Amino acid sequence: MKAIVITTPGGPEVLKLQEVEDPQIKDDEVLIEVEATALNRADTLQRKGSYPPPKGASPYPGLECSGTVVSVGKHVSRWKVGDQSCEFGGGYAEKVAVPAGQILPVPPGVSLKDAAAFPEVACTVWSTVFMTSHLSAGETFLVHGGSSGIGTFAIQIAKCRGVRVFATAGSDEKLAFCKKLGADVCINYKTEDFVARVKEETGGKGVNVILDCVGAPYFQQNLDSLDFDGRLFIIGTQGGAKTELNIGSLFARRLTVQAAGLRSRSLENKAEIVSEVEKYVWPAITAGEVKPVIHKYFPLSEAAEAHQLMESSQHIGKIMLVP
Amino acid sequence: MKAIVITTPGGPEVLKLQEVEDPQIKDDEVLIEVEATALNRADTLQRKGSYPPPKGASPYPGLECSGTVVSVGKHVSRWKVGDQSCEFGGGYAEKVAVPAGQILPVPPGVSLKDAAAFPEVACTVWSTVFMTSHLSAGETFLVHGGSSGIGTFAIQIAKCRGVRVFATAGSDEKLAFCKKLGADVCINYKTEDFVARVKEETGGKGVNVILDCVGAPYFQQNLDSLDFDGRLFIIGTQGGAKTELNIGSLFARRLTVQAAGLRSRSLENKAEIVSEVEKYVWPAITAGEVKPVIHKYFPLSEAAEAHQLMESSQHIGKIMLVP
Repeated sequence: MKAIVITTPGGPEVLKLQEVEDPQIKDDEVLIEVEATALNRADTLQRKGSYPPPKGASPYPGLECSGTVVSVGKHVSRWKVGDQSCEFGGGYAEKVAVPAGQILPVPPGVSLKDAAAFPEVACTVWSTVFMTSHLSAGETFLVHGGSSGIGTFAIQIAKCRGVRVFATAGSDEKLAFCKKLGADVCINYKTEDFVARVKEETGGKGVNVILDCVGAPYFQQNLDSLDFDGRLFIIGTQGGAKTELNIGSLFARRLTVQAAGLRSRSLENKAEIVSEVEKYVWPAITAGEVKPVIHKYFPLSEAAEAHQLMESSQHIGKIMLVP
Repeated sequence: MKAIVITTPGGPEVLKLQEVEDPQIKDDEVLIEVEATALNRADTLQRKGSYPPPKGASPYPGLECSGTVVSVGKHVSRWKVGDQSCEFGGGYAEKVAVPAGQILPVPPGVSLKDAAAFPEVACTVWSTVFMTSHLSAGETFLVHGGSSGIGTFAIQIAKCRGVRVFATAGSDEKLAFCKKLGADVCINYKTEDFVARVKEETGGKGVNVILDCVGAPYFQQNLDSLDFDGRLFIIGTQGGAKTELNIGSLFARRLTVQAAGLRSRSLENKAEIVSEVEKYVWPAITAGEVKPVIHKYFPLSEAAEAHQLMESSQHIGKIMLVP
């Protein structure tokens, strides 16, 4: 089969479409013929050599896809050859082997190709702000990077769960899009002080939950934007990881700080997340309350151009690859 | 009535027994004639002027007591004159007014005097490591300052809930006491590297939950002592509050950091904690699985000497005052 290979750590140009061995499935895995796959920020880190895949994982970049089942391991009962599905796993290749517990049905009303836009954002947002930070109806929620893949999904799912949503982004065009998706308060981080704006919009209290991908540069500002019993969940450190912490600022308002990724989780934990996503998120997609937000499809052979686009941050929503 | 007054911020000598006005109860409060009260570290901070009582609270130091109901507000139905009780609230005085939701019955088998040793430690430990950090049977738990009031209670309640308990303390005598209370692993922080010892005793994994009162000096070591999905709960910053945080070290093992005190909580929140404590902790005390650990009783007039003892850290368990 063909797959995108990271020929050496470096810029987008190191991504090359090459002929490689077909993947072999284990007894609890399913082989998928990939219809589409999608980019994630982690892929760019992996390309640069700073986010190696865990032991036993595919060496090719990519964390999600959609496609058709072409073979099933002998311990797999739910899926059969010919099924259409989308996968929390897999990647930039024509075929991928994925543990059965990380496979989801294509939500009715969504095309097979578009379905590849959902697994990673749904599992990330659900496992963090909902499963761990217990974001609940009636609460307030700030998501940074509201026009990113994560952001566009987080705005929609939070809105349809009765949450008041605040989003930051870096241009008026992106903020208008966040507004269209349902964000109640849209903040241009290049021209506004987001802490001041959050305080102003919450009667001085702050929000209940923040989902952050910036890390160190936003750390104290995020703490300052939280209400009593507020929770900050960090899923990326795009601006750096080392910061100062005044424990007193946690103490004063009983704050919680958490950080986590998906990739290092156990198979059991991933299956639990996928199962919750199917139960709580898929119905919202089926009902049309949460839509895929796709910026552009590239052919798989143009993975380098797709990475360039992601790193330019000009996009809104997901960037996709099609084998 | 007589009460201990902080005559000016300063050392233990600023605590003076003075004649003051009797407290007036509100409609949802109960007036208690105090049998005994107990010291907490927060009292020493308040004495120094660095932990002022919240608006509307009693100006006299003290966070807990036991005693007899002498008057009830008109909205109070559970308590009547003559009832014996212990209070999450109140303090260094002959009489205190306490919101009805913060009053607990004296656990059978415990004297009225000894019952004053429980409210603050029970509410602190339950609201943090159990209600918030979800410490569960089969997990591992490290408590720093195992011989303190908080520590001696935390060891006992965690043990009787099926948790494997690690405790640190600064002398062999204190560690022997922690062992007697049920701690599985006792670590002398003056002679041992607690991170190395925790790793050694957990097959390299670390513990699930840590309760910390030291703050900044232990911060990175605490993170290094946690297993995947570990939770660090900070209830004091005796060693300082400002530290460095590498968000990457949270990210790598999906860690949670939380800090909180009890005093700033709302009346509703305090009542909820007290209600959970009565439901989940009081039966363990009644069954004799959790015992009061009392170092010494002082007359109320010797509050200064009691504070000197607490600040010398020579004690094991609670230091009490009797009006």
